[in-house]
Amino acid sequence: MIPPLNRQHDAYIQHTIDMKTKPQGALGKLETLAHQLVSILSQGMSRAQLEAEKPAIVQPQMMIFAGDHGIAAEGVSIAPSEVTGQMVANFATGGAAINVLCAQLGWQLSVIDCGILTAPAPELGIVSQRLGHITRPLHIEPALSEAQLDQGLLYGQEAVQTALDSGSNVFALGEMGIGNTTAAAAIFSALSGLTGAETVGRGTGVSAEVVEKKQQLIDQALLLHGDALDDPREVLRRLGGFEICQMVGAMLEIARAQKVILVDGFIATAAAMLACRIEPVSQDYMVFAHCSGEQGHRRMLNELNAEPLLDLNMRLGEGSGAAMALPLCQSALAFYYQMASFESAAVTQVVDTHE
Amino acid sequence: MIPPLNRQHDAYIQHTIDMKTKPQGALGKLETLAHQLVSILSQGMSRAQLEAEKPAIVQPQMMIFAGDHGIAAEGVSIAPSEVTGQMVANFATGGAAINVLCAQLGWQLSVIDCGILTAPAPELGIVSQRLGHITRPLHIEPALSEAQLDQGLLYGQEAVQTALDSGSNVFALGEMGIGNTTAAAAIFSALSGLTGAETVGRGTGVSAEVVEKKQQLIDQALLLHGDALDDPREVLRRLGGFEICQMVGAMLEIARAQKVILVDGFIATAAAMLACRIEPVSQDYMVFAHCSGEQGHRRMLNELNAEPLLDLNMRLGEGSGAAMALPLCQSALAFYYQMASFESAAVTQVVDTHE
Repeated sequence: MIPPLNRQHDAYIQHTIDMKTKPQGALGKLETLAHQLVSILSQGMSRAQLEAEKPAIVQPQMMIFAGDHGIAAEGVSIAPSEVTGQMVANFATGGAAINVLCAQLGWQLSVIDCGILTAPAPELGIVSQRLGHITRPLHIEPALSEAQLDQGLLYGQEAVQTALDSGSNVFALGEMGIGNTTAAAAIFSALSGLTGAETVGRGTGVSAEVVEKKQQLIDQALLLHGDALDDPREVLRRLGGFEICQMVGAMLEIARAQKVILVDGFIATAAAMLACRIEPVSQDYMVFAHCSGEQGHRRMLNELNAEPLLDLNMRLGEGSGAAMALPLCQSALAFYYQMASFESAAVTQVVDTHE
Repeated sequence: MIPPLNRQHDAYIQHTIDMKTKPQGALGKLETLAHQLVSILSQGMSRAQLEAEKPAIVQPQMMIFAGDHGIAAEGVSIAPSEVTGQMVANFATGGAAINVLCAQLGWQLSVIDCGILTAPAPELGIVSQRLGHITRPLHIEPALSEAQLDQGLLYGQEAVQTALDSGSNVFALGEMGIGNTTAAAAIFSALSGLTGAETVGRGTGVSAEVVEKKQQLIDQALLLHGDALDDPREVLRRLGGFEICQMVGAMLEIARAQKVILVDGFIATAAAMLACRIEPVSQDYMVFAHCSGEQGHRRMLNELNAEPLLDLNMRLGEGSGAAMALPLCQSALAFYYQMASFESAAVTQVVDTHE
């Protein structure tokens, strides 16, 4: 079971925020972010411990889950499935956007092969958690077998274990998988009751015809799988992907460990929706990093009642949006722990008279 | 004269961005930001120099300009004018939000007394560029004299000189001044032809009645100063503040030096609008850091055709929004200089077929 976020320090944390030398609420989303982060990081602490220990972000861990998708054969992406493996090699040699962002912002990065066309060369240092070489096409049959689903959730748990053991308390999960915006849109449709036309976007840049084709494939899949989609595990199994499955397992495990999950874009949020359907309390531990440029993402965030931190029109995946939210998390904790209070700085307290 | 931004490397810079291992445009606003930053930082360089030198951000400089406002006596703010000086002392001793953000993010910070009620104690290390102790109430008479306007613009220029001399190439200008959202809204009204009702917000948190009063004072001021407001210098002199005047002078000087100006929130953007009216080409050097929670700010940004990077519902001033955009600038340059190209990483080039 995932323990719910402890609310015992709520009033104290809010009072601390409100007594800082600024008008109430003037730091906007940084204030709600600080509240959530301090709540998570102080899980299990007494107030005295919270005051003394000032729990901070430790070894933030970025994990990229890669997998290939049978649906890609339908031409739903701008690139062939081979590009998944090429990009995994690019991650391993440090040339991708996420490598640059992790190096700049202080993330540790690991890359997990959840099942891509060709297993990467061992010397690349990719974690091997392969469930196969490609999923089955979701509009024709379930993408994963039952055994793959179970193993994938377990692999996801295991993937975060080393980082948890070494003290990491903030995680971001990125992904790479040609075709996976179609899987994510299908998952979103199944969980929300929306049609393909309402959940599908242009992915990383397909044409209007391809968008229409994606929508049709999704509607076909929804029809095919029917009532089985009432169960979120079946949604994951039938419409998901190897990487999406392992991301769900990883998210549930991070929530179980009561650590912070920085949720990335469209595909990561589809995984987050699934985790929240399986264990609703896991959302307590999720920070929604950004709203991507993928059309359905804003709608997905609304469905979760989630306020994203950033909105930079990014639509890359790889965890790139989540990566960029780390400085905001650090700013939130910095103001919480380091800013003076009205009293300590001898500033006349200003009271917000609004509402 | 301010030299316009050199467009000679435009095609080369865009090509470099498009050949990175990502779908075209997938890094969203980071891509346009990278383009602008590289253009500014490579001013005067040949393409060979740009390739060899990879010009980066050097010693980013945050400057807070503080001033008091006669209009504050009308009760337009949640705090009395004394709070300006108290917050200046708080900046000097390191307890304010901007101190924490500068320390976290790597900004050098300087604080300039442009004219606050009581001159701060010399040991606080505040730069003294006082134009008086408070402006005159803008709804009754011009806020600044002609001599104050000239001296203020000059002071603004001088304020950035030391940082320019020591190599700083990215600047952010913050402000502190009880009553200055009223001055900024008045400036915005004068420059845009909008009424007080369209430009005034709740500042750092006033009530609906106070918002109405601010609107009335602004409409009164617009009527009083009449046609004189056709000249942006007169708008600044009649409706501005000591700190706003020096910010305009500073922005013009930074643009003259062809360095980056990260524009903060409502008050800083009012100063930016004035700088752009006085010297339109100065906008080439401006990066709009965020959209603040102050009601009129979005409208102001639209007026400038500016796309803000962040939207965190912050409404603090002090340069806090601009401070938080620095990691985005660093990410933009990092991906531009460090990411692999399709060719170097042997990734099949994916072509965006969308418009």
